[in-house]
Amino acid sequence: MNMINQVRKKNPLIHHITNQVVMNFSANGLLAFGGSPIMAKERKEMSEIAEIADGILINIGTVFENEFKSMQIAGLKANERNIPVVLDPVGVGASKFRSDFVQSLLHDISFTAIKGNAGEMAHLVDVSWKTKGVESDDGSVKKLEEIATKVADKYNTLAIVTGEIDVLSYQGEKKLNDSGHKYLTKITGAGCLLGSIVTAILTLDEPILKTASKAVHYYGLCAERAANKVEVTGPGTFIPYFMDELEARNNNEKE
Amino acid sequence: MNMINQVRKKNPLIHHITNQVVMNFSANGLLAFGGSPIMAKERKEMSEIAEIADGILINIGTVFENEFKSMQIAGLKANERNIPVVLDPVGVGASKFRSDFVQSLLHDISFTAIKGNAGEMAHLVDVSWKTKGVESDDGSVKKLEEIATKVADKYNTLAIVTGEIDVLSYQGEKKLNDSGHKYLTKITGAGCLLGSIVTAILTLDEPILKTASKAVHYYGLCAERAANKVEVTGPGTFIPYFMDELEARNNNEKE
Amino acid sequence: MNMINQVRKKNPLIHHITNQVVMNFSANGLLAFGGSPIMAKERKEMSEIAEIADGILINIGTVFENEFKSMQIAGLKANERNIPVVLDPVGVGASKFRSDFVQSLLHDISFTAIKGNAGEMAHLVDVSWKTKGVESDDGSVKKLEEIATKVADKYNTLAIVTGEIDVLSYQGEKKLNDSGHKYLTKITGAGCLLGSIVTAILTLDEPILKTASKAVHYYGLCAERAANKVEVTGPGTFIPYFMDELEARNNNEKE
Repeated sequence: MNMINQVRKKNPLIHHITNQVVMNFSANGLLAFGGSPIMAKERKEMSEIAEIADGILINIGTVFENEFKSMQIAGLKANERNIPVVLDPVGVGASKFRSDFVQSLLHDISFTAIKGNAGEMAHLVDVSWKTKGVESDDGSVKKLEEIATKVADKYNTLAIVTGEIDVLSYQGEKKLNDSGHKYLTKITGAGCLLGSIVTAILTLDEPILKTASKAVHYYGLCAERAANKVEVTGPGTFIPYFMDELEARNNNEKE
Repeated sequence: MNMINQVRKKNPLIHHITNQVVMNFSANGLLAFGGSPIMAKERKEMSEIAEIADGILINIGTVFENEFKSMQIAGLKANERNIPVVLDPVGVGASKFRSDFVQSLLHDISFTAIKGNAGEMAHLVDVSWKTKGVESDDGSVKKLEEIATKVADKYNTLAIVTGEIDVLSYQGEKKLNDSGHKYLTKITGAGCLLGSIVTAILTLDEPILKTASKAVHYYGLCAERAANKVEVTGPGTFIPYFMDELEARNNNEKE
Repeated sequence: MNMINQVRKKNPLIHHITNQVVMNFSANGLLAFGGSPIMAKERKEMSEIAEIADGILINIGTVFENEFKSMQIAGLKANERNIPVVLDPVGVGASKFRSDFVQSLLHDISFTAIKGNAGEMAHLVDVSWKTKGVESDDGSVKKLEEIATKVADKYNTLAIVTGEIDVLSYQGEKKLNDSGHKYLTKITGAGCLLGSIVTAILTLDEPILKTASKAVHYYGLCAERAANKVEVTGPGTFIPYFMDELEARNNNEKE
């Protein structure tokens, strides 16, 4: 059984501490992929929720200062329990507040993976990169590899730099991926949902660079398949068909 | 005129104090069904918003401790005004915080109806049930009936236990429903939206077990109709067609 | 190049301080239209986020008291930087809290535009209007013009009163628009997304009544085109096709 089907069979419970913009999209996408989302932020239940989860995703897209403690508790619990905890540093370069917030998270928690676009990941290792809000421009693959390697080394983590070419780096090894579709850049939350899916697949007891690459590749393939449907005439119609593809592939692979 | 059309004609204003994941889906679903959503949580306006509403829905899916007071004010106002107030105890068994939170709500407010899946409802009456996060497994109809009856009796309310078979119980009477589709379990918020719709139909001046059963049955039928469309190829495409069905049926029934 | 294409080329970054119900819909709609959304509310980053934005949208749909300071900081920064700042006073008449909240915003910030339905806009200038929750009934065009003119004059702003006929008023001039479709009233957030799009177009260095009228007209046209598609069978299927139209028109106009 391949890894996509292994995840689906396991149906891991992923505790999301994520931004308000993508909650619905991420929950539906993870359900389609074959995981179970639970979204909770209240500090008083963080320890218990993190205790029953199979993996934890921390995404700072619309973060508030008072959410730090919740993220910290959940992240430390993940480290203690040895379950995956993934960081999505959305828009980390957009303000000093976000930058400091993320540095505090990185100081306290040992993240299994960090996933972001080139601008966000470059910010984490002080590489210069032109950024606009939460979006960023693509650069050469060489530069992307440099950024990924630096993030992986500095934070002793799996680094996933997303873009037209996705670059993954872990302990000196790297993987590139070119599946995907421009519609993923025309909808909000495509990167965020990938974070959920990566967290889910990292709950498997498999080498993490290999599993994460598989998830990133699969995600892009689903986007391509959806975008190529005759019914899809833009980013609006892309969304429901993308969800269907995230679910359908799993079904096909059962056979 | 049947009850679905009566609600649509009344177009009740339903005050939602609900979770961040499903707000958009619930608002669109209730609009399609024929109600008007208003979503507000700020304590300082709770009394006024609850005053103009025709019904109130309290859903603890992503609840924060500081939302208790708002829920309490709105619920007590509903009791005072004798309008329906419905509780959806999402994931109540997932943490002691949620469990205590819900017990406090149940202590202070007299709920017209409580709607949840078997695991959530079982938790409210200390019946054992295996649960995973906010999802739960189905059990025998007999056990579901036991749970529903216990909730109805203990909290003097209409109990709605949702699942492959939905079981409703109120003052010793019960109703079963088997309409529905598995896609409702593959999208987030299907149970939450049913809560909105049940709240809307309970604003009618009709026997509540009968009206709620009607809403639950109708909801499942809409799901079946949507799922059976040739255009629907998975949970992603299911969503827009399900919305259309929630709206279309009402139109047809006008004739 | 027409103004719709000018905006798309500029791809303005719009800082949203908006309600939780519509965040995803607004972000996707603005992306489709050709802008870049950034959604942030934390007070500590307000000044920096507002500093990098091209325009700011303040929408009080699910507002909390503690968000006032964030809105104030962002709005004052917009005034200081001379970039557009738009107010959407959702449900302002629904509670004294909202009414006072909006009056404080209007006292502190000079809004480039205020956009709302007739009931909301009437409330801002003490014109009587029957309202139900956040929705309102349409009135005569004459009355709509009176409301728009009063808002424009009292707050020295561009007033946009939305409804079956949209009325825009600015410094004694007015524009009417009748494009649109009833489906816009059957989904949540149609007015909110228009606010995002108006903010985006106001970042152009063009006369504001003309640009805003263009956006309002275009928005309604996209709705008509989507609603007239054979694939659209209700408000649920309307949404993805509406998004596609918001994006497609821009593409067509490139040629």
